[in-house]
Amino acid sequence: MVKVVKIGGNVIDNEQALRAFVADFAKIQGPKVLVHGGGKIATRLSEKLGITTTMIEGRRVTDRQTIDVVTMVYAGLVSKHIVALLQSEGCNAIGLSGADASVIRAVRRAAMPIDFGFVGDISTSGVDAEFILSLIERGIVPVFCSIMHDGEGELLNCNADTVASSVAMALAEKVDTELIFCFEKRGVLTDIDNPNSVIGTIRSDSYKKLLSEGVVNKGMIPKIDNALKAVSEGVKSVTIKHSEELLVESGTKIVL
Amino acid sequence: MVKVVKIGGNVIDNEQALRAFVADFAKIQGPKVLVHGGGKIATRLSEKLGITTTMIEGRRVTDRQTIDVVTMVYAGLVSKHIVALLQSEGCNAIGLSGADASVIRAVRRAAMPIDFGFVGDISTSGVDAEFILSLIERGIVPVFCSIMHDGEGELLNCNADTVASSVAMALAEKVDTELIFCFEKRGVLTDIDNPNSVIGTIRSDSYKKLLSEGVVNKGMIPKIDNALKAVSEGVKSVTIKHSEELLVESGTKIVL
Repeated sequence: MVKVVKIGGNVIDNEQALRAFVADFAKIQGPKVLVHGGGKIATRLSEKLGITTTMIEGRRVTDRQTIDVVTMVYAGLVSKHIVALLQSEGCNAIGLSGADASVIRAVRRAAMPIDFGFVGDISTSGVDAEFILSLIERGIVPVFCSIMHDGEGELLNCNADTVASSVAMALAEKVDTELIFCFEKRGVLTDIDNPNSVIGTIRSDSYKKLLSEGVVNKGMIPKIDNALKAVSEGVKSVTIKHSEELLVESGTKIVL
Repeated sequence: MVKVVKIGGNVIDNEQALRAFVADFAKIQGPKVLVHGGGKIATRLSEKLGITTTMIEGRRVTDRQTIDVVTMVYAGLVSKHIVALLQSEGCNAIGLSGADASVIRAVRRAAMPIDFGFVGDISTSGVDAEFILSLIERGIVPVFCSIMHDGEGELLNCNADTVASSVAMALAEKVDTELIFCFEKRGVLTDIDNPNSVIGTIRSDSYKKLLSEGVVNKGMIPKIDNALKAVSEGVKSVTIKHSEELLVESGTKIVL
């Protein structure tokens, strides 16, 4: 079983939480892959450089200056910091963008109806699962940021949740794969202010009900959509949980 | 024969020159490795962020803020830009720092007599030649920046010329290896203002004479020192040449 773990921007932005998470991730036995965000740090660097950050529906509008900023932050600062920390915990990590060894290829999103700039979408066939598995067989732990390439020389900013689910789906075609989304909540909550209101399991049918009742928080919708797509495409198990609870049974399980 | 090519900061800073160089590098037949700098872009980003750049004897004093800047620029912006361009030329590049798969380990330089901060030195035994060769065997072209790690969670800024010669020397223990330093001059010049005053060959004995006569420019000394060390450690051939002349016989050959 390969575990694909996604760690979100709020945790990465908190050095103490990040170090605790990295130490836990290093302890996971067996093959594993990490996917990370870094949006908060990118927004802060943009501010310092006088670049305005525009978000539409939670997605960053990525002009030329902004693709440079996110490439620096995700593929440089955050990737290498996480890799160095993992190495110090005895975990032989390698930090990769999608351009590296062309491991994940994306397609630039059409400029209509909204022009997001250098933003891309990944297809499962864009992921080179064979190369990822060849690293894993050498005992190397791939760490992916969400910067991909279009094969024509341009880097594209992608959604890190989608990177995680795309990698998991591509691996699931070859080996048993589990996907875990870690963030700063204990799972999908029915009451966002009550950390104990974790929904234990979401099924595609119960999800529709939760949506129609407005129980699921807006920000969670793409995460659950990604999770449901992943289980429908053969990923054995998808869990949404708190980054502090990586090593314990907890969170919300997404099943078909 | 594996070709290890180093490309310097002045070329990287010039988008047109960089693209021309990348297109040439992609055309090299057979196994190859690229090592790049990026110092000029790092200095410019530091300026924009209000961080003072201090250079002592041509080396950057690297405090906490500066190691973040050089990690962003070298391992993020420059690495992924070069990799994406190489991919578009059909060259399956992978951009790595030394922390990635712990491929190059460095030791933090002692704070005496000068405290350079997060600056490291590489030993040949710090280079995992076997991993580099395993990538090459898969048809992958490693692209190294000069950010290494100390194995204890810290990233260290190293000299890119030294990265190139260390990688070449480590590979030379296993396979025939050639090292090529590309920069914005046509080789080692006897007259810095005359591009046609290229010294064809430098031997260790003629080098001493050039040094004592003050013919060799100050900035060239570490480059030639690195080159001489590399040939003395088994690298078959070391050449210093213009980035525009990568594919033609030219430049200064350094021999024992």
